[in-house]
Amino acid sequence: MVAERPGGEAAPKGPKSRAKAPDEWELEKAAPEGASQPPSGGGGRPAARASRDYPQKNAEILSSQYGLNLFLAGLVLMFAWAVHAAGLAKSAVLAYLVTLMLLQLVWMAWYVCRRYTQKRLIQDKDTHAGARWLKCGITLFAMITLIMDSFKIGYFVGYSDCLSITEGIFPVTHAVHTLVQVYFLWCYAKDIIQSFKTLERFGVIHSVFTNLLLWTNAVLAESKHQLNEHKERLITLGFGNISIELDDHAPQCNCTTASLCSIFSQGIYYLYPFNIEYHILASTVLYVLWKNIGRNVEHLQHHKIPFRFQGKTLGTILGMMVFATTIAIVVVYLIQIGRTKLKSEIALMMFYLYAIIVLTLMCAAGIVALVIYRLEDRSLDVSKNPARKLDGDLLVGTASGSWLLSWGSILAIICAETHPSYTWYNLPYSILVIIEKYVQNLFIIESIHREHEKSHDDIKTLRILTVSNGSTLSPAPSYKEIYNGINGIHNGDLSYKFNGSVCLPESNGTGSPDEEKSEPCKADAPSASGSSRYRRNFTVNKRRILKNVAAFLFLCNLSLWIPPAFGCRPEYDNGLEEMVFGFEPWIIIVNLAMPFSIFYRMHSAASLFEVSCIT
Amino acid sequence: MVAERPGGEAAPKGPKSRAKAPDEWELEKAAPEGASQPPSGGGGRPAARASRDYPQKNAEILSSQYGLNLFLAGLVLMFAWAVHAAGLAKSAVLAYLVTLMLLQLVWMAWYVCRRYTQKRLIQDKDTHAGARWLKCGITLFAMITLIMDSFKIGYFVGYSDCLSITEGIFPVTHAVHTLVQVYFLWCYAKDIIQSFKTLERFGVIHSVFTNLLLWTNAVLAESKHQLNEHKERLITLGFGNISIELDDHAPQCNCTTASLCSIFSQGIYYLYPFNIEYHILASTVLYVLWKNIGRNVEHLQHHKIPFRFQGKTLGTILGMMVFATTIAIVVVYLIQIGRTKLKSEIALMMFYLYAIIVLTLMCAAGIVALVIYRLEDRSLDVSKNPARKLDGDLLVGTASGSWLLSWGSILAIICAETHPSYTWYNLPYSILVIIEKYVQNLFIIESIHREHEKSHDDIKTLRILTVSNGSTLSPAPSYKEIYNGINGIHNGDLSYKFNGSVCLPESNGTGSPDEEKSEPCKADAPSASGSSRYRRNFTVNKRRILKNVAAFLFLCNLSLWIPPAFGCRPEYDNGLEEMVFGFEPWIIIVNLAMPFSIFYRMHSAASLFEVSCIT
Repeated sequence: MVAERPGGEAAPKGPKSRAKAPDEWELEKAAPEGASQPPSGGGGRPAARASRDYPQKNAEILSSQYGLNLFLAGLVLMFAWAVHAAGLAKSAVLAYLVTLMLLQLVWMAWYVCRRYTQKRLIQDKDTHAGARWLKCGITLFAMITLIMDSFKIGYFVGYSDCLSITEGIFPVTHAVHTLVQVYFLWCYAKDIIQSFKTLERFGVIHSVFTNLLLWTNAVLAESKHQLNEHKERLITLGFGNISIELDDHAPQCNCTTASLCSIFSQGIYYLYPFNIEYHILASTVLYVLWKNIGRNVEHLQHHKIPFRFQGKTLGTILGMMVFATTIAIVVVYLIQIGRTKLKSEIALMMFYLYAIIVLTLMCAAGIVALVIYRLEDRSLDVSKNPARKLDGDLLVGTASGSWLLSWGSILAIICAETHPSYTWYNLPYSILVIIEKYVQNLFIIESIHREHEKSHDDIKTLRILTVSNGSTLSPAPSYKEIYNGINGIHNGDLSYKFNGSVCLPESNGTGSPDEEKSEPCKADAPSASGSSRYRRNFTVNKRRILKNVAAFLFLCNLSLWIPPAFGCRPEYDNGLEEMVFGFEPWIIIVNLAMPFSIFYRMHSAASLFEVSCIT
Repeated sequence: MVAERPGGEAAPKGPKSRAKAPDEWELEKAAPEGASQPPSGGGGRPAARASRDYPQKNAEILSSQYGLNLFLAGLVLMFAWAVHAAGLAKSAVLAYLVTLMLLQLVWMAWYVCRRYTQKRLIQDKDTHAGARWLKCGITLFAMITLIMDSFKIGYFVGYSDCLSITEGIFPVTHAVHTLVQVYFLWCYAKDIIQSFKTLERFGVIHSVFTNLLLWTNAVLAESKHQLNEHKERLITLGFGNISIELDDHAPQCNCTTASLCSIFSQGIYYLYPFNIEYHILASTVLYVLWKNIGRNVEHLQHHKIPFRFQGKTLGTILGMMVFATTIAIVVVYLIQIGRTKLKSEIALMMFYLYAIIVLTLMCAAGIVALVIYRLEDRSLDVSKNPARKLDGDLLVGTASGSWLLSWGSILAIICAETHPSYTWYNLPYSILVIIEKYVQNLFIIESIHREHEKSHDDIKTLRILTVSNGSTLSPAPSYKEIYNGINGIHNGDLSYKFNGSVCLPESNGTGSPDEEKSEPCKADAPSASGSSRYRRNFTVNKRRILKNVAAFLFLCNLSLWIPPAFGCRPEYDNGLEEMVFGFEPWIIIVNLAMPFSIFYRMHSAASLFEVSCIT
């Protein structure tokens, strides 16, 4: 299977060759050609044998521990800056990030050069990794990130008198990093690296955690900004009893072009959400690349699944309505909140009511889809697929963020002594958030694990059509096309006629896992015709419903990403949780959980887009 | 392979049977007998076919999401209690925990009864899960937990006038829960559940998260206690500038038997560390049980590996010395710290110096072991093994806790304006903590992944001995025994003599992954004799070193578990980090990271015990 793969390992030690796992053997049989063959060890053995792999399990642990420490060091640095640790300036954090980005750039350049000089180097690709629509999403977010970087450069130029030089170096490096990384992800996200594995592991995991740190940095900046806005609103509303001090890192000098600076600093915060999504999505793609290093791919099927609007009209229209309404609600909310107490309460009630309706619709759609899955019988694909496993883990993991917030709200409502009327909307809202994510995760994970029985389905359709040949059923145009297409393919084999019904060769297979295939070769053609017509309609309708559900949920998730990402956060504004938990503890919970909650929406939207394509 | 397994699924729906994954088919072939066979669906199909599995991937997601929500709700409840949320008493937390424990008890009783009535139910066992030494450890900790529970009951009786009734119910329930759970783990930890899979998944995951919540509760109580002690010390040392208020939940009435109550309340805090370890270890064993549900086991080899002291004398003696010294150091530290400024500084310096020496020794031992692994050539076992995967993940995951603390300390030392002399010891200490865990994780994970080539080794030894037959080498007694043993087994086959050297039948196999076996059939017997003698000594020495390293590291990790578990926490006492980060932020970091850091030591000790057995 793996016929020829170049590249020995970079760091062989010791004089002896050793017993190897079967897959390692396959790799090394063709080892002599390719990159940097080391001199053979002592004892005069053939060069191919002396080239020894550093155990890949160890390389995995070695590199992941390196990455974790990189990340933890950065995390501590950012935490220290966030809590105003003595003797630590923002420039230290930025310098650390710039160093990491430069290191990643060097590694990516090395990788690209090596791939360019040795074109035969990567022969296996993981077709599931780095899906096209995911890369398109990353590119879109990266472009907005570049605009943000240019705003930051402009801001630095305006305040260049009193800002440290790192504040200028950071956006420039970040822009270059973004450009190169997007190129890298487009070209190499599907690679299954089989040479220099230990070195590449370090490079890839460095990239993963660099992106995660850049994500953390953006999340921190965004959280500080949101918290400041919340505190300003509290001051406006006259809550003097909570100890409020604005956490502002505004420069100490005047901007040379005051109007531009104001636009820049305002604009940056509207662009942050996209930057945040860019980094987390990039890190997930890179993580899959890391998991794929040294992997043996079992099958190399490639299904290019184009996106079609066909058959999703209802779901799309409903979803677009939700999307448009959400934007309107967010705008009204942001205008109204914090003006006066009454306006705030009305804005909150509006938001809760709207969210309750949308979440109920989403729950219903998810449950309908799950019921259909229970009616339709298909086996689950349990083959190894790092991209899919990560998707599932991330869905459940990041949903925990918003579940934590919801349980906090529920507890606060139970414990609170006074209940203003708007707080009662909070209870169904919180419960619905929990249920909706529960159901939706089940739906998405089952959908991405279902086997794509495209060929089986085609054969089934063909069978239905041929069985009903001569009955009153007239196939719809689209099915006629399929029929003609498959008829052309199976032209020679389509002669197993038996008592008016057709028996495909496939349907004679015994022990086949798909039971339905072994049935239609029966004498009772009329009853088969009736039942298969019913079944065909049933299947078509089921698929249509599933498509619409996926499209609707996709747009709903995209919509629900907007409110928290752009500052519409009732968890801050309703004040109930702050009263019960205390201001600081609740702020800590929200700031820790909210980034995951926001990412959940974007990630589930991405997954649902995939689901709506493959259904 | 899986010949007969009873039990259909509890909740089948819909009229049709469906395509199944191969392993599901195997399971259902024998479905009719056993528990709760549902009525067959419409269409008059055989009952065996109508019994449909709820997709196991879905059951996994369904149950894990349930468990997560259980956990998050409990977490929020405890957090609210910890931050003195308005309107929330401790009894709410305890009531929640009692409910969870009772539910788990009901489930365990049901499981035990069903296993008792249907003895043939579980036929596959995961031999890697629930190792005997792990169960012994759990039992030991459980016994101490029972003592703690009796102390708590005594404490409740003493203060019964002013304590809520839940404070009495909790320890009683907890004691019953502990007894039943230990029995359950001893009898059923290795089970691979194949019937009622969906229901069992809920039961097991409920147990996992109940234990995790009990762990969190214990950690919280312990952290509060440690923090109070730290604050008392600060008050003694005259640090009035930090806002200190003791977080004491002492009862508001007098104890009926004052002296006993004081012993109880003191004693409880010395027993907490064992209770904490008990719950986390129990939850890991239960988690492996959950992962094993519905699994297909490929091979059922059972190696019972007895523990032997033989060949580990040096490592054990050195380790015992470290253990004894640690206890002495901890006692001195706890007596000295917080008395006066000078005594505190001396205690800190003593602790740091001692820890630096121990950690250096551990690093050196780990590096020696890794170098030996690079010299010795053995393939890694990459077969599926949930228990081992969890071990590896936990080692790296929980090490992150102490890495975070270490990076915090390093940053604090870099940023601090004044450096009292003792703080300089903190720098090498923190760096060594990072390196030591890095190296140790590599060593443990490689050790538990190495294939046990016992039979290969035996054959190798035999070959060496037969090759060197007639040379000056006289085999050591232990090798003579092996020789005789294997000689007896291979009695009939040992006749492939060729030119003075012996060729075992196995060594003729072509394409065998172990290269060394295909070599000794050569004519140059004398040189082979010399090189094999060298190689034999080399192998014996290597194994002896590895055994000693594992034993030494095991005892060192056990020793290093003691200081933080029993309140010797220089991260609190040295004051440097508190100065740089601020009191509250640093306390939050320590309280979050410390439980994982402590668990790391116990878990790595457990893993190293396993390593020292299998080496």
